[in-house]
Amino acid sequence: MAGPIGPVVGVIGAGQLARMTQQAAIALGVELRVLANSPDESAARVIADVRLGDYRDLATLRDFAKGCDAITFDHEHVPTEHIRALAGDGFAVHPGADALVHAQDKAVMRERLTAIGAPCPPWRRIATVADVEEFAGENGWPVVLKAVRGGYDGRGVWVCRSAQEAAEVLATGVPLMAEAFVPFERELAVLVARSPHGQGVSYPVVETVQRDGICVEVLAPAPGLDAEEAAQAQRIALRIAHELGVTGLLAVEMFATASGLVVNELAMRPHNSGHWTIDGARTSQFEQHLRAVLDLPLGSPSMSAPVVVMANLLGGDDPDLFSRYEHVMAHDPGIKVHFYGKEVRPGRKIGHVTAFGDDLDEVRARARHAAVYLSEGVYT
Amino acid sequence: MAGPIGPVVGVIGAGQLARMTQQAAIALGVELRVLANSPDESAARVIADVRLGDYRDLATLRDFAKGCDAITFDHEHVPTEHIRALAGDGFAVHPGADALVHAQDKAVMRERLTAIGAPCPPWRRIATVADVEEFAGENGWPVVLKAVRGGYDGRGVWVCRSAQEAAEVLATGVPLMAEAFVPFERELAVLVARSPHGQGVSYPVVETVQRDGICVEVLAPAPGLDAEEAAQAQRIALRIAHELGVTGLLAVEMFATASGLVVNELAMRPHNSGHWTIDGARTSQFEQHLRAVLDLPLGSPSMSAPVVVMANLLGGDDPDLFSRYEHVMAHDPGIKVHFYGKEVRPGRKIGHVTAFGDDLDEVRARARHAAVYLSEGVYT
Repeated sequence: MAGPIGPVVGVIGAGQLARMTQQAAIALGVELRVLANSPDESAARVIADVRLGDYRDLATLRDFAKGCDAITFDHEHVPTEHIRALAGDGFAVHPGADALVHAQDKAVMRERLTAIGAPCPPWRRIATVADVEEFAGENGWPVVLKAVRGGYDGRGVWVCRSAQEAAEVLATGVPLMAEAFVPFERELAVLVARSPHGQGVSYPVVETVQRDGICVEVLAPAPGLDAEEAAQAQRIALRIAHELGVTGLLAVEMFATASGLVVNELAMRPHNSGHWTIDGARTSQFEQHLRAVLDLPLGSPSMSAPVVVMANLLGGDDPDLFSRYEHVMAHDPGIKVHFYGKEVRPGRKIGHVTAFGDDLDEVRARARHAAVYLSEGVYT
Repeated sequence: MAGPIGPVVGVIGAGQLARMTQQAAIALGVELRVLANSPDESAARVIADVRLGDYRDLATLRDFAKGCDAITFDHEHVPTEHIRALAGDGFAVHPGADALVHAQDKAVMRERLTAIGAPCPPWRRIATVADVEEFAGENGWPVVLKAVRGGYDGRGVWVCRSAQEAAEVLATGVPLMAEAFVPFERELAVLVARSPHGQGVSYPVVETVQRDGICVEVLAPAPGLDAEEAAQAQRIALRIAHELGVTGLLAVEMFATASGLVVNELAMRPHNSGHWTIDGARTSQFEQHLRAVLDLPLGSPSMSAPVVVMANLLGGDDPDLFSRYEHVMAHDPGIKVHFYGKEVRPGRKIGHVTAFGDDLDEVRARARHAAVYLSEGVYT
């Protein structure tokens, strides 16, 4: 590997987010370095500067960080104290530990959001079945139990309808918190970026459609969303980014309820709800994240088509993904396909597709057709 | 480097065209391999599977090609007989030698275009000053002398106004041909793709603006071009692709003259006149090239904005390109910047910028502002 010409950004983790960041890095002349567990990983397949090592080991992280102009993350599992140590060494880590902890620890997140007045469901740290029963006495069943750390894609979340169900979750020994079940109408997400010098931008509010706790579809912009509610959602997300001192991207997942918006989860990195921006916005979320962590002025978040729909590809039973390319590309020359370079396993996110146009129903049908065919080989 | 999951495409050469192809390969799940002269090269900096070697050596090429599902090119300098040998070994080389020779050898190109009735200027193979004088006697001065092989970006082209000037060019010993000087109104380019099974698509006709023989600006679509003339230009380009058996991309550079279109040059690879498609078309030329060489159905060439302008960044005196990022990004959040990871040298193509919008004058001014500032540090 030759010496760098452009700024070097180190990404800890080498999944599909780091992989897609490479597309933006190539354009910006940013030299991407990834810390991977294995050379098989999604991003390691497409990047020249791959370092192998364990992100839980501080010495590995310190060695990795040498020569990087900024350090950022593909996932939220790096120990908070290691991030603090890297910053103490003088490395520019974005987001910083004090911000990132809100995406790592759901109880810390709820405490802080409650303190700044962002809309949250009733919630409480709990340790025993009695705690859950008391919480349910005040807020009713079901009670949503969440692992305080480490959950994603529906893992680490249990909707409990009785003390018996809660007892089973508690028996796993995972530190938990309780949240009231929110009877939502739909789920929205707001993706914002904030740079170290404090510039913020917000992408249009999108609707996310989940199945079994996994996002399957993103509709941009959120269909039929009232302009005032959209602006409110963006204000909430920008305010959280500001108050928490986020540097880089922040995705705020929200429930739309009959009585208004409720914040569900935070992520501080490029996010599945923003994959549509690669083909559908003037600045992709991956470019935006690089600009933010390098403290460069942020790019236009405007859409390049009136309606954009992203659908995730989930692994099916047939591992031969590429044999299904021909039909999808011939059927719809306007569809954009993104494969993550991952072996197909049932239910695994292995890619996504994006469709654009003027009419939501038509665009959504096209995205679905491609996603179902690529995932399952089924012609819908 | 781990074993491949997706199709493997080998690119001979590791310049900016291979570099930008990597962005498309990442999305398609195509594993790109490049043959580079050095690990410093533009594409070698952003690709995991880099092989070092000399593209003029057949044994190197054969070793490089092993395991590739398709072989293609970053440049047109690979010896025709080596390409033929690789195809003889059973490798899928696109474009093939019989097509590519028309982009390698200008006299072969003119013979073939004349045979299929594509519009050419008067031309002739020449060897002596007497040949040039005879040609000038029929077609007038100036006479354009061109190196039959190896020229690009204005190199290998001499506009001679006298027998004396022609004699100086002949004295270099380079094999030459003569063409009549075409009094053109402007230059147009048509980029088409053709796949091995014969599907063709054409991008909108663009206007290219040159300075000192180097393309500095591309306007998409070509402003004020009559619809019939645009269709004619596309028909000419698609017909050449078909007649020559091109597989992959074909860029046809044309002169627009008072008496109609004249074909100037051919390139069989992604081309500078198509860089606008990365941000400005639904399918970038790089994705289109990969789809074509893998014989996948081709993608939509439609534009994602009414007007798109691309401006090249040429190296200036100040090597510190990145220090000028801040102003350009802050000034225009909608501008797209592409750096090629090359050391700055005066006059060298080191990147490009793209702007979009509805109004040509405004979009062109934005692209120029960014290009001049990034290239020269001058605020226009």
